[in-house]
Parts: sequence; structure tokens; C-alpha cells
Amino acid sequence: MTIITGKEYVQSLRKRKMKLYLFGEKVDDPVNHPIIRPSINSVAVTYDLAHDPKNEDLATAVSHLTKEKINRFNHIHQTTQDLVKKVKLLRLLGQKTGACFQRCVGMDSLNALSITTYELDQKLGTEYYRRFVDFLKHVQHNDLMCCGAMTDPKGNRSLRPSQQADPDLYLRIVEQNEDGIIVAGSKVHQTGAVNSHEVIAMPTRTMRKEDRDYAVSFAIPSDTDGLLYIYGRQSCDLRKTETGKMDLGNIRYGGQEAMIIFEDIFVPWERVFMAGEYEFSWPLVSMFSAYHRQSYGGCKAGVGDVLIGAASTIAEYNGVETSAHIRDKIVEMNHLNETIYSCGIACSSEGATTPSGTCLVNTLLSNICKHNVTRFPFEIARLASDIAGGLMVTLPSEKDFKNPEAGKYMEKYLKGNEETPTENRLRMLRLIENLVMGLGAVGYQVESMHGAGSPQAQRIMIEREVDIKQKQKFAKNLAGIKNDK
Amino acid sequence: MTIITGKEYVQSLRKRKMKLYLFGEKVDDPVNHPIIRPSINSVAVTYDLAHDPKNEDLATAVSHLTKEKINRFNHIHQTTQDLVKKVKLLRLLGQKTGACFQRCVGMDSLNALSITTYELDQKLGTEYYRRFVDFLKHVQHNDLMCCGAMTDPKGNRSLRPSQQADPDLYLRIVEQNEDGIIVAGSKVHQTGAVNSHEVIAMPTRTMRKEDRDYAVSFAIPSDTDGLLYIYGRQSCDLRKTETGKMDLGNIRYGGQEAMIIFEDIFVPWERVFMAGEYEFSWPLVSMFSAYHRQSYGGCKAGVGDVLIGAASTIAEYNGVETSAHIRDKIVEMNHLNETIYSCGIACSSEGATTPSGTCLVNTLLSNICKHNVTRFPFEIARLASDIAGGLMVTLPSEKDFKNPEAGKYMEKYLKGNEETPTENRLRMLRLIENLVMGLGAVGYQVESMHGAGSPQAQRIMIEREVDIKQKQKFAKNLAGIKNDK
Amino acid sequence: MTIITGKEYVQSLRKRKMKLYLFGEKVDDPVNHPIIRPSINSVAVTYDLAHDPKNEDLATAVSHLTKEKINRFNHIHQTTQDLVKKVKLLRLLGQKTGACFQRCVGMDSLNALSITTYELDQKLGTEYYRRFVDFLKHVQHNDLMCCGAMTDPKGNRSLRPSQQADPDLYLRIVEQNEDGIIVAGSKVHQTGAVNSHEVIAMPTRTMRKEDRDYAVSFAIPSDTDGLLYIYGRQSCDLRKTETGKMDLGNIRYGGQEAMIIFEDIFVPWERVFMAGEYEFSWPLVSMFSAYHRQSYGGCKAGVGDVLIGAASTIAEYNGVETSAHIRDKIVEMNHLNETIYSCGIACSSEGATTPSGTCLVNTLLSNICKHNVTRFPFEIARLASDIAGGLMVTLPSEKDFKNPEAGKYMEKYLKGNEETPTENRLRMLRLIENLVMGLGAVGYQVESMHGAGSPQAQRIMIEREVDIKQKQKFAKNLAGIKNDK
Amino acid sequence: MTIITGKEYVQSLRKRKMKLYLFGEKVDDPVNHPIIRPSINSVAVTYDLAHDPKNEDLATAVSHLTKEKINRFNHIHQTTQDLVKKVKLLRLLGQKTGACFQRCVGMDSLNALSITTYELDQKLGTEYYRRFVDFLKHVQHNDLMCCGAMTDPKGNRSLRPSQQADPDLYLRIVEQNEDGIIVAGSKVHQTGAVNSHEVIAMPTRTMRKEDRDYAVSFAIPSDTDGLLYIYGRQSCDLRKTETGKMDLGNIRYGGQEAMIIFEDIFVPWERVFMAGEYEFSWPLVSMFSAYHRQSYGGCKAGVGDVLIGAASTIAEYNGVETSAHIRDKIVEMNHLNETIYSCGIACSSEGATTPSGTCLVNTLLSNICKHNVTRFPFEIARLASDIAGGLMVTLPSEKDFKNPEAGKYMEKYLKGNEETPTENRLRMLRLIENLVMGLGAVGYQVESMHGAGSPQAQRIMIEREVDIKQKQKFAKNLAGIKNDK
Repeated sequence: MTIITGKEYVQSLRKRKMKLYLFGEKVDDPVNHPIIRPSINSVAVTYDLAHDPKNEDLATAVSHLTKEKINRFNHIHQTTQDLVKKVKLLRLLGQKTGACFQRCVGMDSLNALSITTYELDQKLGTEYYRRFVDFLKHVQHNDLMCCGAMTDPKGNRSLRPSQQADPDLYLRIVEQNEDGIIVAGSKVHQTGAVNSHEVIAMPTRTMRKEDRDYAVSFAIPSDTDGLLYIYGRQSCDLRKTETGKMDLGNIRYGGQEAMIIFEDIFVPWERVFMAGEYEFSWPLVSMFSAYHRQSYGGCKAGVGDVLIGAASTIAEYNGVETSAHIRDKIVEMNHLNETIYSCGIACSSEGATTPSGTCLVNTLLSNICKHNVTRFPFEIARLASDIAGGLMVTLPSEKDFKNPEAGKYMEKYLKGNEETPTENRLRMLRLIENLVMGLGAVGYQVESMHGAGSPQAQRIMIEREVDIKQKQKFAKNLAGIKNDK
Repeated sequence: MTIITGKEYVQSLRKRKMKLYLFGEKVDDPVNHPIIRPSINSVAVTYDLAHDPKNEDLATAVSHLTKEKINRFNHIHQTTQDLVKKVKLLRLLGQKTGACFQRCVGMDSLNALSITTYELDQKLGTEYYRRFVDFLKHVQHNDLMCCGAMTDPKGNRSLRPSQQADPDLYLRIVEQNEDGIIVAGSKVHQTGAVNSHEVIAMPTRTMRKEDRDYAVSFAIPSDTDGLLYIYGRQSCDLRKTETGKMDLGNIRYGGQEAMIIFEDIFVPWERVFMAGEYEFSWPLVSMFSAYHRQSYGGCKAGVGDVLIGAASTIAEYNGVETSAHIRDKIVEMNHLNETIYSCGIACSSEGATTPSGTCLVNTLLSNICKHNVTRFPFEIARLASDIAGGLMVTLPSEKDFKNPEAGKYMEKYLKGNEETPTENRLRMLRLIENLVMGLGAVGYQVESMHGAGSPQAQRIMIEREVDIKQKQKFAKNLAGIKNDK
Repeated sequence: MTIITGKEYVQSLRKRKMKLYLFGEKVDDPVNHPIIRPSINSVAVTYDLAHDPKNEDLATAVSHLTKEKINRFNHIHQTTQDLVKKVKLLRLLGQKTGACFQRCVGMDSLNALSITTYELDQKLGTEYYRRFVDFLKHVQHNDLMCCGAMTDPKGNRSLRPSQQADPDLYLRIVEQNEDGIIVAGSKVHQTGAVNSHEVIAMPTRTMRKEDRDYAVSFAIPSDTDGLLYIYGRQSCDLRKTETGKMDLGNIRYGGQEAMIIFEDIFVPWERVFMAGEYEFSWPLVSMFSAYHRQSYGGCKAGVGDVLIGAASTIAEYNGVETSAHIRDKIVEMNHLNETIYSCGIACSSEGATTPSGTCLVNTLLSNICKHNVTRFPFEIARLASDIAGGLMVTLPSEKDFKNPEAGKYMEKYLKGNEETPTENRLRMLRLIENLVMGLGAVGYQVESMHGAGSPQAQRIMIEREVDIKQKQKFAKNLAGIKNDK
Repeated sequence: MTIITGKEYVQSLRKRKMKLYLFGEKVDDPVNHPIIRPSINSVAVTYDLAHDPKNEDLATAVSHLTKEKINRFNHIHQTTQDLVKKVKLLRLLGQKTGACFQRCVGMDSLNALSITTYELDQKLGTEYYRRFVDFLKHVQHNDLMCCGAMTDPKGNRSLRPSQQADPDLYLRIVEQNEDGIIVAGSKVHQTGAVNSHEVIAMPTRTMRKEDRDYAVSFAIPSDTDGLLYIYGRQSCDLRKTETGKMDLGNIRYGGQEAMIIFEDIFVPWERVFMAGEYEFSWPLVSMFSAYHRQSYGGCKAGVGDVLIGAASTIAEYNGVETSAHIRDKIVEMNHLNETIYSCGIACSSEGATTPSGTCLVNTLLSNICKHNVTRFPFEIARLASDIAGGLMVTLPSEKDFKNPEAGKYMEKYLKGNEETPTENRLRMLRLIENLVMGLGAVGYQVESMHGAGSPQAQRIMIEREVDIKQKQKFAKNLAGIKNDK
């Protein structure tokens, strides 16, 4: 077992019994639903890649627990090389899917829990780490996909969890007994939730004593009774219901986000990793964020490669690929994209091993990485819009292209250079549209902004992590100031 | 007659018999088609505003030909005040529709032709200006909406019109006789084409002698036999076919672009404004562009106001409106938006009267204006994405919200501050989505990039219009350089 | 009299008896001091230009008080045309001096006082406006240069004037009697102070009741007993003491800032324009700021022209003027520079007449104007550094160039294209250095940042001046939100 | 021997007999010249650091030739860890000197020659590598400072070396005989040239067959007969001649650039590393550039730390350190600075070993690194100007501060918060001025722009190094395009 294929993964999804809403209706078979399937296809690539000999070194790892070969997405980083390989793996998957493949959240949750539960036990004598390791073995052995469930709905954002008018606006323990805990609440923006086997819940912010019921972490199967999913809609999602696939741009792959509702769900102690230890809420959040902010230095650079490739291709199709300003814009896109990647690499190679044995990224630099991701993909997309030309948004539909009369005219008048079939030009424009404002823009732009924390979250961390007093000393020394605090 | 209402305008559209394709099917009644109607609603506002006493000064003008009160969109600018009022009118309409109201193209075509046909006649002794004035009277008297048809398909962009493999890739005169001309070809990205009464064709670039058949301008009714339209699809267009309107964000208004095919169409001489005078192609193009680049300083600032208002509202709904970084981002959005507007005002108030009596914008400054529009709306949209939060792209559908079970949870968990109904929050997020990546983003972003010419077109004009030799003289004088060319 | 020449202006300066420190020594004859003279030369151009028939329309105006022709710098704006002409005049002077010509501060002070003293009298029945008009006639008749003294030292910026440990850190009334007031304190960053005939003091911020002694405005001759000036040093100022002038870059012109100390100075009531009416402090400050923020849309665009001309010239000297990336950078410099200018024009043409009859700029747009000035000159300078090449900062001195042996090698090896004398290339590099990091950078960059208020001051004003509630209404209307505050 | 101290280094300089011009005069004792000394002090820190036990790991290395401990600046990188340590060492030195310490150029020259001479020998059977290794042993053993002399004057930049009107505008072989070669020409912008023991000449660009005489590399002692230096002047250099040091800002350290003239200099074969093998010119240039572009990811981040520390200190002195916008600007400065550093780290950790055994940086990423350095220091400096306030450029001189009367007023009125001595505030402002527009700005800004190649040089390399065809394949695959080249 241990390493399954994409096909086996898809099969495994069919066995679950989920309660899922989409467009106001219950969905019994998510696997074959046209709105959902592309996101499943993306995840499947993370499984298939582990069987590709060329990429084995990136896509698999050796479990530090069992010494078995496992899918890297379920690996606990042992060295900075592991961290670097993660970034390279994510870039490759971004290139292959042009979409969010949804599997980093689980990986980053596992690694953050690996550190925090260890520290919890060290400090408080609890047994969270042992439970976590058992859970991890289960995940590694069955090659499961985990959904990392962190973001609460938050209600009025100027209030703490325990101050909200409705106490459920952050996920919380409503009861605790010998056998386990009962939790209620919701998690929103859950990437890949519907495509997961396990849901790993974690708190979303620093907690104080009065918020202790909200300091809760656990893992449950994704089809646990009482879990309800509502599927998030995306820009242009209805195009997936059309018979033709051309207007999708990215004809196979997509991303997924959903709300999860927890209706008084029982979690046995064996699956509980934090229950009230509020002072460990922030360490868990910040460690998860550090890993997840690193992730974006890989996957978004990979999707950036797709958009750069698309822009460069459309320039050729339009016959302007040698124009100085077009070449310059493609250089700029590459420059920004490689800057993102460089930051992903740097926070990895500058990582360090924690007492738990898990290797953690450099948290200052991973925040720098993500913060650039909140900016550069938008500029890359703007440049792609520039190069693509207005046709990207005035192009008639595939149905028109297939219509004998309208299609004849489109064929004739929408031709670019002489050698390229008109259809190729239309397809490439649709791919750019996908990433600039369509299905892919959700992941490439808005997720780049808010995933792993909004820009302001990184700014707060940068302020904290920088040693400003040391920098002041350098300055005072050079200016000849001695009599100063 | 002279000034009709929005209602009368919509009625007038029903009388036309157009050949129009949309999603591979012929559309007989565009007025009631759910995909098309929002764009008609936007145009209707330009008619209704002329009847609003509060805005009469902006929305109407006195015809210099007939001294009758007319809709300003059919007015020939007589003073710089007219130019300034145009910008203010466009901003107001942007605020009221949050969309492209499609009527500036016609206005800008009329004004550009007013100057060029006059100059043509002065230089060549032709009678184009007289013909144009007759046409203009017809337009003013019947308060017609004109589509300005400039952009040709262009094929391989590195080749001139007469060098293309397919000679039809630019609209051209295929025959010329006593009664008129016969034209064939296509125009693409035609804003508001399907909502127009008249189509005014103009060449799209500088022409040389060998391209003289392509130097052609004329006006014909939009339902002329032989004209065929293919409707451009937009991001999220299918949401317009859903029963609920909430997920549209902008529940009433939208924009429109279409391809027009000219199948060997006869145009009588009375409606021909240029036919082979290739050396006047560039002046017409550059004058139209100058006017149209000014337009964006108005309408996009107006749409920007909507997005700023939406971002500021969602900040309140989220309970973060007093946060320093949120306030700072809204200031930045306003700063960029008012910079666009300032450039629109400046190129207007610095306009000058041409020999034809028509007042022309300052062409350097109108290029500056548009060039900022190719940048700032993208940054305003990025900041709006930041303020909105990730929910903008993970929000389930209106159908889920209306479902008793899923809706109950959405109502509970997607509530922001205590006083705001959840529905309001969802509606506001959808409006932001509309402008950031949905239906409105087509106009607010990609049209800002490419409408009235792509960024590089402005850069070329800026280089031409600036007196660099004079600036060199200033520098040499200050540096004490005398012996220099 | 009324309009004097530059020469007469310089003569008039000699008659004053100032107490002035520079480099730790008293300066008796500022006019001939090599450090000071270039700044006097700049002011002189503002006088000479009024005698240049070609620029008479910009450089002079008709006094609304006496109907005499006066220098525009002492004019009270009567129309938006006056405001527009001011901007054009400043741009022209920036082009001619490549430096700060120091005369707008006085102009802007006079106009702001013209409005505020009128409003003071209307509301409080005082006679400040009458006194101000008498003073203004004196200024206009004798064509005086006025220094507008606003910025106080401020001490600890987190404290109000009356809270400071040292009560003198804002200029204040220390005594008040029948004949007038006695004031003490200091004003810093005083542009052109040493080159002025009159000093016009104004408060620098909003004042509360407890700060009323600090709400003071008056005018006194610049050589009043008890005034002491300390000259501000600038980057590269010592080059002015060298015999050769080449290394100055700008061989004739410069700017000036100084501290002014007020040592218990008596001001007769006839020259007092505010004395304790603290609620008028903010209106005066904000009106002055509005005018002064407009000014930068003219002068900095003019200096920008010089830098663009210099960059374009050095590109020719280096033989790279046709290179695509060089041309593109020069386009970008022009684009940014004309954006600044457009904002200057827009806030002028959108000005409005106040009850006093004085025409005021549009205050929102003048803040937008200045805010762009805190950004774009830095980018223009960065691009100039790029085009200039590293030689700008590695060039040996003029003394080396004049040395027979070293100079021979410099002549040979520092030659650019074949036709340009090496000396010209060196001179042009020095001019760019001047504006990028030398004497001129003080005015072109740091003054662009802080003059007329630091960036944050504009952001606060933009937030205040924008009607955000109206924008929210537009958004709510489009989203279909009705039941909202 | 092997590792000498700063003091010993300074001593060693006195033994040289150089021909050096500065301000038109010959300088016999550079070591004690006030203009030159600060740059020597900077280099001395690179020597002293090797004796600091705390930093031994960074500042020293083990020679791969002799296994002796050597100063890292003379080390040939054996692993990516060496590359990473180099970046960290440079950042530390930037923090300690706040200036250019001039020693990377030599280091980068040695490493580039180590690879290129090896490849030359492999391909052509020459013995350049053996000679180079002998030279390297000499350098390592005597702990010499090397100047890497690459940039030729270039004359008309649109012409190749052999096309120039004056054949000497690129350094070239004028004669070749049994014993060696005779070279003539010049190198400009030579960082640290006057402070070096050895000059390592290299060609500056790709060469063709007709340029073969210009494909020359060699090393000679810096006081070789026939070498002549002309010292480059810098912004504010004359302040170094004042008695007080306060106005320098950075009271001890500085940078240095000079022109070198080669007057028919004989170089024995033992010291020749390339002589006519024009096809190896570009590899040498590009490898040197790759290393040197990496360097900037260290040193400029270090100087950035100083400027950030200074800005943060002045904010405290002004009493505004808790203001939201000030904190936000400091976060932004840190974000940009750490992005530079991340790129420096990434191109190092992604380095690879060449056939010669020398470890080379990732050349794509080192170009990315440097390209960010051509942008971010300018924005960091702009933000520092913003935080510093206008006083930075209006501050009177130290001489005024020391004058009893003027100084008393400066002491009183230029005080910031109550606890900080006024002098400290003035010193800190001068340090910021130093880096923003003074002596330090030469290194922190213009050298950031042009050192190791101007921005366009990096853009050309980025275009070359990126695999755009692969990116196009990713895009085509996702868009479903199969029938395409």
C-alpha cells in the first residue's frame, strides 16, 4: 500500500458518505460532478507524480517513523533539503496543473502539529505527540489526503472569540468527557475539503484564557456524521457544465474551497491534539502559517510559469514575439516569478531543526516569501492581460465557434499568424483568461492574497521577527552615538 | 423628439432586425435576452440622465448645428468646458452603473470625424464634412446611439493590411461605383455594437499608399443587411441566466462587446466619410484615440468610486473599518482613482479649438491619462481583494443561501458585524467579485488596459508628443554646454 | 516701480542688515557668498521673467487692488485661469533654473491669508483683512519677496505645542499689549528665507484652546532686529567654494533653506493677522497647504523636464539613444512627469472662488497632486541614474580634468560618441548627479517629499476630503442593498 | 602569515609606490589622505573580522590548495555552503561599515577565473589554470587584496571594441612576445583600486574574432610602473576635509572608485590568464557577473539594515515610533531588504559545482537577485527620507552647532524627544543623509544600479536563462493544444 495512484485516490473518494451542498442541492457523488471533478483531477496528479520515476526524488520521501517510502505530502521534514524539495515539488505541480492542487494544507498541518504537540507534551506532560504520531502513521500508511481546517468564520473581526454575539463563530469545545470532546462551529475557505479523507482542525489565532474552549485541535474522517459541506462558487464555474471544454481555458484542472459545518461532533481522545491549552494556540498557528507561507513560494511560481508560457505563446500566435516591449514584459514576468521562487528557496534552505526533530522553515523569510506572493502574481497577471490583447475578453463562445456560420467567420477573422490554427489561439486566450479572471484567478490571485494569512498578517510577523534593536545599534555605531539607550 | 428616455431607447431597439449569434444560436430579441439585457440597461441610463433636472447641465448640450437641446453624447465639443463636462458626465455614469455604458465610443467617433472630414475637405476639396454634418443632424435629431467601429482583427500583427495572407483581415473597400462603395471585413471588440442604431466605421491604424483600400470610413444602420454580429462572452456571464440575481454582484448593469462581420455591404456616398485618402487615416485614428483616452479619465474613475465604496462598506461589515491599515488602503485607492480623474480633467481643460471649430483635448495629456488607466485600476482592484477577504471567492451560491438547510448555516456563520444582515455582506462581496474578476472586471480591468489602445500605443504617442529637444536645451543651458548641436 | 528686475532685486538685498550664520561664522554680505549666491540667482529669474515679453502673460498679473501690473508671485488669484497660469509659470521657472526658486511659499502665504483673514473678520468682527490688504499693497507696490514661515521645530511630535517640555518649540506670543505682540520661537526649513524682504509667519497645525498663544500670524521685514538665521547645509554644498563650476552640474542656480530664530520680537498690530483665534489656525494651514501642494505640480514638473532632457542628452552622448530600453525609460520619465503636471492643472482648473473673492484650488485634487510628487520624482531620478551609467559617481574632479596629465587621460578615455567633446559629457553627468544626489536633489527629492507637508499629511487630507458615504451608496445601490444605514 | 589584521593591511599599503591623482594633484600617501582613508578603513574591517572568533566561520575558510586557514575573500568556493557563507559575511560587513568594503570584486574575479582558466585549458590545452593557481597561492599566502578590473570606458556604446574611433577605448594587447604581453587602455569605476595589492584585469563583454586583442586577462601588482590612477569624486566628498566628523554621517567608513590607466604595461606570461581566446571572453564575464550579482544580495542587505536601523532610531528621536504609518514603512523597508537577502541566499544554495571543482551560483537566480537590487534600495532610501523628515536636508553644519550662539539655538530648537541629546538626533539625520544622497548613496544606490552590470544586462541574462519553451509546453498542455510546434 503506502503509495497509491491517482486512480486509486479517486476510487477511495467514492467510498465516503458526505453531506455536501452545491448550488442549493445535495451532491451524492462528488467524483462525477462536473463542477467538482477538475479539483479532484488536480489532487490526483499529486498521487500520480509519486509513481513517476523522473520525479520520485521530489514526490516521495522516506518516513522517519516507518522508514517506508511515502508520498512527500505526508512526510515530516527532517532536513532543510526536505524543505527545499517541497518547494520544488510544489512548483512542478503548479506547472502541471495550473491550479491549486490542495494538498499542501494537510502537509503543513501535519508538520506544524508535529512540532506543537511535542512542545505541549514537553511542557505539560500531556500525550498529544504520541496520539499525533499514531494518527500520522495511519495517514502515511494509507496515503490519505488531509484537509487542514484553520480559518474560522470570525464574525465581527474586531472582537475575540469569546466576545462574539454568537459563541459559535469560532469552532469550539461544547462538551468534554471521558471518551473525548464534542465540538461545534464552522471552518471556512477550506481548500480541498471535499476531496479529503481526513479533516485536521486547528485554532486560527492567538487565544487568551477566556477563549480556552476555542483552543482545540483534532482529526476526524471527512465523512464523519455531523459534518456538512457547502461548496464555494468560483468565477466562471458554470462553464464547467457546458459540453465543450475549450472555454475553460484549463481543460482538466481546477481548485476547490468549501465551508465545513461541525454539528456537535464527537471526537475521541485518541484524535484530539489540543483541548484548552490556549497558550499553544499561537505557536501552532504561527508554525502552520510559516510552513504554508513557504508553500506559496513553490506552487504560485509554478502557476506563474504556466501564465508566462501562455503569454509568450500568445505573443507568437499574434506575430509580435520579437517586439522589444513584449520581450521586456515577459522578462519582467519571469523576474517577478523567480523572485517569489527565490524567497521560497531561501526560507527553506535557511530552515532549522526544532527539538521535536521536525525541520522548520526560517519564519521571517517565509513571511517575506508570502508577502511577495500577495503582490507579484497580480502584476504578472496584469502583464499577461497586456500581452494577450483585448480579444481575451471579447471572444465569442466555443458554441459560436462550433456553429457552422458564426464559426466560419471566427475561423477566418480570429486567425493570428498564418501557421497557427485559429482554435489554438482561442484556447490560449481562454487559458490566460482562466488565470487572470476566471477559475484559475481564484487560486492564482485571491488565494495568493489571503491564503496562509492576509498581507497584514505577514506585516505583523515581519515586524516581530526582525531584530530592530540590533539594526539601531549598527546605525548608532556608525554615526558615532555612544550615550544612548 | 431630440432627447428620448431610456424607455424609448429600449423600445427603439426592438424595431431593428439584426443577425446576431450568441452561444451558437441566433438571437431574435436581444432586448429580452438575459445575457444582453444588463448592457442595454447601462445604455438606458445615459438616456434617462438627460431628463434628470439635477444633471441636465452635464447630460445635455445645445447643438452647434441646430441650437436644439441634445443628449451630450451626440454633441460636438465647442469649448474646453464641454470637454470637462464630458469627463464629469462619464464619472457620474460610472458611479451609477458600475459598468461600461458603451456610449463614449460613438461620441468620440463623431468628434474625431468632425475634425478629420473638415481637414480632408480643406486639403482635397472633397465634400466629406458636409456629408458628415448631415449624418450628425440625423443622429442628434433622433438621439441615436452610435457604435464606433475601429479595431480590425489584424491577423499577423507584424504585417501591414495589404501584406496579410487574407486580405480581409482589415476592413476594406472591395468595390467602388457611382452610387457608393462595397466593403468587406470585420471589426472586433465592438463595445455596445448590438445596442446601437448606427455603426460608424473608421480605419484602425496609419495606412500607406498600398493600403489605400483600407482607408475607409462610413456610417450605416446597425441592422443593415449583410451585417452579422457574434456576441463576446465574458467572465461569469452564465450567472445572468440564473433565477436569482444576487450572485451577479451588480444586479442590473453590465457591458457588451461583439464582433461585427461586414459581408460585402453597400454604403451610399452620402454615408461615406473617407474612401482611399490613406494619409488621413492616422489623423483620424489619433484624434479618435485622444478623445477616447480622455474618456477613461471619467468612466473608470466612476467605476473606481463604486469599488472604493464597496471596499469601504465591506470593511464596515467585517468590523475592521477603523483599522489603520484598512483606512490606509482606502486612502490609496482614492489617491489612485483621483489621479486618473485629474488626468482626465487636465487633458480637457488644456484642450484647444481646431480649425473645424471642434474642441480637441490636449493629446499628450490624454495619452498620459489613459496610460495611468492601464495601471491604477489593477492596483485598486488588488487592494479591494485585500480588504474584501478570501470569502469573496469561497462564498457558496445564492441557491445555497436560499436552501433551507445550507442557507440556515450560511446565515449564521457568514454574518459579519452584529447589525448587518448576512445577505448584505454576501451581496457586497459579490459586487467586489464582479469588478475584480467577474463581469465588471472585463470593463474595469481588461478594457482599461486595451480600450482606446494598448499601453504601448500610448507610449509611442507620449514619445512623439513630448518636445525632447527643448528639454535637452534646458539641461544643456544649466550645465553650461554651449558648443553642442 | 511695481515690477523690478532681477538686478534690482539683488541690489535690494544688499540694503538689509541680517544676522546670519553659515558654517559657524557670521555672514555680512550674503549676496556675494558663494554658498548663497546660486539661490539668489534662482530668485532673480522670477523677477527677470516678468520683463520677458514672451512670458509676460504668465509672469505678471493685474493687481485686483490697484489695477497695476504686478509680478504674478504677489498676485491674489481671481480666477481658475490665474491658478492655471501659476502652475505654468512654475513649470517654466523649474525648466529655467533646474532648482527651487523659492518664491511660491510667499505667494501661497499671501493667498491663504487673503482668504483666512477675510473669514476671521466676517466671523469675529476683527480687522485682520484690512491690515492684510494694506500689507499686500506694500508688497505688490515694492515687488517684495516674501518668505512664508510655517514649520515649527515641533520637538516631540507626539505632543501638542502647549504640552512640550520647552514651550518655545512652537512659535508663540509671549506678550501682548496696546501696540502689538511680542513673539518668540523658531521656524525651520525656511525656503528662501535669507533671500526675502519680508517674513510672513503662520501657525503650522491645528490648535486647541490651550494652544491659543501659538495661533499667531504676522509679517515683519526679514532684517528685523532679533531675527537670526542659520543656513542649512546641503549635499555637495562645498563644491560651490571650488574655483571651477563644472562639478556643480547646475552651474548657476540652487535652492536655500534656513532656520529662523525669533528672539522676543515685537510686531505692531498693523502687521498682525492672527493672534489667539486658534480655531482659524487649521483653516489657514490647510488653505496654505492646498495652494502649496498645487505649486509642486508646476515647479517639480519643470525640474523634471531638466532631468529628462539631461538623461536624453547623456543617452546620445553615450551612443545609446536609439536603444529600445533607453527610449522606453525616457517615455516612462515623461509619463510620470506629465502625470504630476496633469494633477497640478486639474486642481487649478477645478478651483473655486471663496467669499473673499480669492480663487482657491480644489483641495482634494491638490493633495492628490502633491502626493504623487512624493513618489514620482524619486522614480524619475532612479531612471536617470540608470540611463546615466555609473560614471556619474566615479568621475574624477574638474581639477583632475584641468590637470595636464590626468586631464589628458580623462579627455581620451571618458569620451562617448565621437562628435561630442568629452567635457560636455562630464558636464551633463554632473547635472544629473546634481539632481539625483547633489545640490539639486535636496529640492527635487527631499523637498518633494516633505515640502508643503509630508506624505502622511496628504493621506489624512485625502481621507477627509473624499465623500466615502456617497461612494458606499453607489455600491449598495448596485448590489441591491436597501435595508442599510 | 596567511591571515593578516586590518592594521597589518594598512601598513602593507604604505609600501606601495602608486601614481595617483586626486583633485588635480598627485597623492604620495593615500593612507593618510582624508578623502581616501575612510575607504581603507572599510577594507580593514574585512581583515579584522577574520580574527574575530565569533565570526571566524564566516570570515575565514580552508584553502582547497594548501589546507591552510585563509581569509574567505581569497577562497575558491567548494560547496554551496561556501556560497551561502559568502552572502552572510557580506551582509555582516555591510552592517559593520554601512559602506562598500570593496573586497568582493577581487573574490568574484578569482572564482570566475578559476572556472574559466580551467575550461580554457581543457578545451585548448593551454596552461592558464596552472598559472592562475600559482597566482592564487600567492594571494592566499600573503592575504592580498585584489581589485577586479573589468569595465572598459567603452566610448560609443553602439560600437564594438575594434570599431571604436580610438582603439584604446577597450583595454587591449598592443604587443605580444616570448616573455609576455604589453597592454594599453583603461578601466573605469574601479572599486577599491587604490586600496589593492593586485589588479586583475578581465574583458568586459563578449568578443568576436576581430576583437581578439581585447580578449585579455592578467594580474599585476597595483603599483606596477605605468599604472596611473585618477580618484573618482563622490557626493559630499569635501566634508571629509572638515575638522569635525559629524556631518559625514558615517564617521569612519566609506567606499572608493577610481579610473586606472594602463600605459603600455608589460605583463609576464606567468601572470597572463587569457590572451586572444575571444570565445572565452563571454564565459568569463558572465561567470564573474553571476558571482558579483550574488554579492549584492549580501552587502546591500547589510547596508539596508543600517538604513533601517537609522530610520527606526530617528522615528524614536522624533517621538513618532508608535505611529501606525511609521511602523508600516519600517516593515516595508524590512520586507524589501529581506527580499534582496532571500535572493542572495537562494542563488547560493541552488549553486552547483563546475568541472573545475569551483562551486558556481545559480546564474538565473543571481541575476534575479541583482535585478531586485537595482530597485529596492531606492525605495528603501525613499522611505528613509520620508521617516527622517525635511530636517535631514535643512540642518545647519556641525560648525554652526559648535558655534556658541548658533549652537545654543540649534541645541534648543532641534531637540526631538526629551531624553535624546540634540546631537544624537543630528548625527542620525546625517547618517541617513549619507545613505540617501551623500557619500554612502554612491554605493547604496548608484552602485546598486550599475555595479555588476546595469539593469538591462540582467534582463538580457534573465531572458537567456529562462526555459521559455518548457513554459509554453506547460501552457499548451493545459489548454489542450496538441498540434503545435
